[in-house]
Amino acid sequence: MTGTGAAASLGDGRRRGKVTVATIARLAGVSAPTVSRVINGQAGVALSTRRRVEAVLHEHGYQRGDAAAQAPLIELVFHALDSLWALEIIQGVEEVARDQKLGVVLTTMQGRLTPGAGWTEQVLSRRPMGVIAVLSDLTAHQQAQLATGSIPLVTLDPTGEPLHDTPSVGAANYNGAMVATRHLLDLGHRRIGMLCGNLKWPFCRARLDGFRAAMDHAGVPVDPDLVRVGPLYVEGAVRETEALLGLPEPPTALFATNDLQAHGVYEAARRAGLRIPDDLSVVGFDDLPFTRWAGPPMTTVRQPLKRMGTTAAAMLVALASGQAPRERRVELTTDLIVRESTAPPPGR
Amino acid sequence: MTGTGAAASLGDGRRRGKVTVATIARLAGVSAPTVSRVINGQAGVALSTRRRVEAVLHEHGYQRGDAAAQAPLIELVFHALDSLWALEIIQGVEEVARDQKLGVVLTTMQGRLTPGAGWTEQVLSRRPMGVIAVLSDLTAHQQAQLATGSIPLVTLDPTGEPLHDTPSVGAANYNGAMVATRHLLDLGHRRIGMLCGNLKWPFCRARLDGFRAAMDHAGVPVDPDLVRVGPLYVEGAVRETEALLGLPEPPTALFATNDLQAHGVYEAARRAGLRIPDDLSVVGFDDLPFTRWAGPPMTTVRQPLKRMGTTAAAMLVALASGQAPRERRVELTTDLIVRESTAPPPGR
Repeated sequence: MTGTGAAASLGDGRRRGKVTVATIARLAGVSAPTVSRVINGQAGVALSTRRRVEAVLHEHGYQRGDAAAQAPLIELVFHALDSLWALEIIQGVEEVARDQKLGVVLTTMQGRLTPGAGWTEQVLSRRPMGVIAVLSDLTAHQQAQLATGSIPLVTLDPTGEPLHDTPSVGAANYNGAMVATRHLLDLGHRRIGMLCGNLKWPFCRARLDGFRAAMDHAGVPVDPDLVRVGPLYVEGAVRETEALLGLPEPPTALFATNDLQAHGVYEAARRAGLRIPDDLSVVGFDDLPFTRWAGPPMTTVRQPLKRMGTTAAAMLVALASGQAPRERRVELTTDLIVRESTAPPPGR
Repeated sequence: MTGTGAAASLGDGRRRGKVTVATIARLAGVSAPTVSRVINGQAGVALSTRRRVEAVLHEHGYQRGDAAAQAPLIELVFHALDSLWALEIIQGVEEVARDQKLGVVLTTMQGRLTPGAGWTEQVLSRRPMGVIAVLSDLTAHQQAQLATGSIPLVTLDPTGEPLHDTPSVGAANYNGAMVATRHLLDLGHRRIGMLCGNLKWPFCRARLDGFRAAMDHAGVPVDPDLVRVGPLYVEGAVRETEALLGLPEPPTALFATNDLQAHGVYEAARRAGLRIPDDLSVVGFDDLPFTRWAGPPMTTVRQPLKRMGTTAAAMLVALASGQAPRERRVELTTDLIVRESTAPPPGR
């Protein structure tokens, strides 16, 4: 017997590798319309029934087959919409969407890491061709709900387990941090500090590891007092920098996990009466548009944010059309942009 | 005969003030399904037929009655997504959408003023509950298509005729500009220049007019050489400011139409070796988040951008539920935020 025979032997409404709504209904002990309502995210199904149907759907690997019924929409979910960082990613996703005549539905989670319970129901009822989650994680249950609805998922700078199966896009954070740190070392700095973000986020951890690697390669010990973890915003970085500048032996250079933190370094230096780069060198990360208009223009690591958006969207379009992704994880190159916030340390 | 009798007399499928699809089909000489396809923005209708049906729909004031068939979506259309300005408006619209369990579909027009031809068809086929157009205009034909689909439209900082009928939201641009100019006058400045945006845009024109009004009220003549029109971006403002600083009698203060232009003034001053505010005072407009981190922190006019977004979205929700807008034009208050980029002129 070959595969064809095996397929035929499934008989009674089951297609190869697929179970029908009728089968799911029988197994869950509910009517077929109830199963359809669960699959379509419609209201009118008791929560306990919904959970039971979802469990059976998931157990049997049910996937909707009617891709034609999908709406021409991409769902784009953001952890937070609070920086030009987000805007450039949106521009990239928009570019692919326009090309493919898709609408982009934007959802933000107000800084939460996982969309709320109502979100999945809304998404299932909209029947998008796919979901892009930026700096955010879906719960295992939410991922199963999307899979059941045959809605592919791509993550951009995911926050959870870095080796998960979900296709993802990011930048070469580790290498970018190494190049930035090496630039400061080459200028002659030895007291180099780093402002980190939450190390649970893989991109923050990768940037710290790249910093450490460059220091180790150069034989310069990392002073643990000079490495501080704080929020990725200006205000927190002002406080962290003020603490560093108050040390008996303050740093002569700081590498920040993002440009907003680097702006915080600028502000703390200004308050302390220090000049950048004469008294303190600073390197940021992202190359947001206004860094080049900072006083002085900022040396920073460019992340190709817009291209990260186009890449994630193109990956999603391929997945939705049934193609397997060529790579599960795409890392785009980062570049050091040397401007005027870095110079040799004072006294050199 | 009262209203009830008049309604009854319409008879044969026409409801009061409404024509049916069957009537439109008869008048346009096509089948009822063809009329439905046009109304729903579906493909498969020849362009000439579509135009004829649309003309009849428009002439008879046809409006879809089946609001229940609408998708829980707000369409948000931007002229361009190139500044934190846009992000704050999105945040405001998102807030109302989240509250109302609506998705937000984002479209950008890459700097064009009117969405492309395909856009309206996409929108009609998505059946959103309404459209918010930011710094952009729909053509009369596009507006008629939306009206036919019973899809309300609200504009935010509209670009066309300022006295049009479409409900719109903006900020108190004229008054904000007066207050900013008055601040510079009160500091003792007399050689005050202004960087304008395209004066076809009502908000740009209102800011120039507010500047002129404050100068006139103070009895200080406006030197036409000190008023320059340019793009609303940093780069162009650098060039305009360099031209102003090269005059035999340069200005001691500049009022910019937006914060990005004011950043251009900073950069031109830096290149010319001038200190802000000691040698040159600058006032921006918008109060984007990074203005407070500029070197020095920028004096600017705050536009309540997020609240402009929530106001436009709330207006749209009200219109979609059949309420007439209380006001056709809502102007939200602006505030002068005095920071460190303004001081008395040199020598005072």
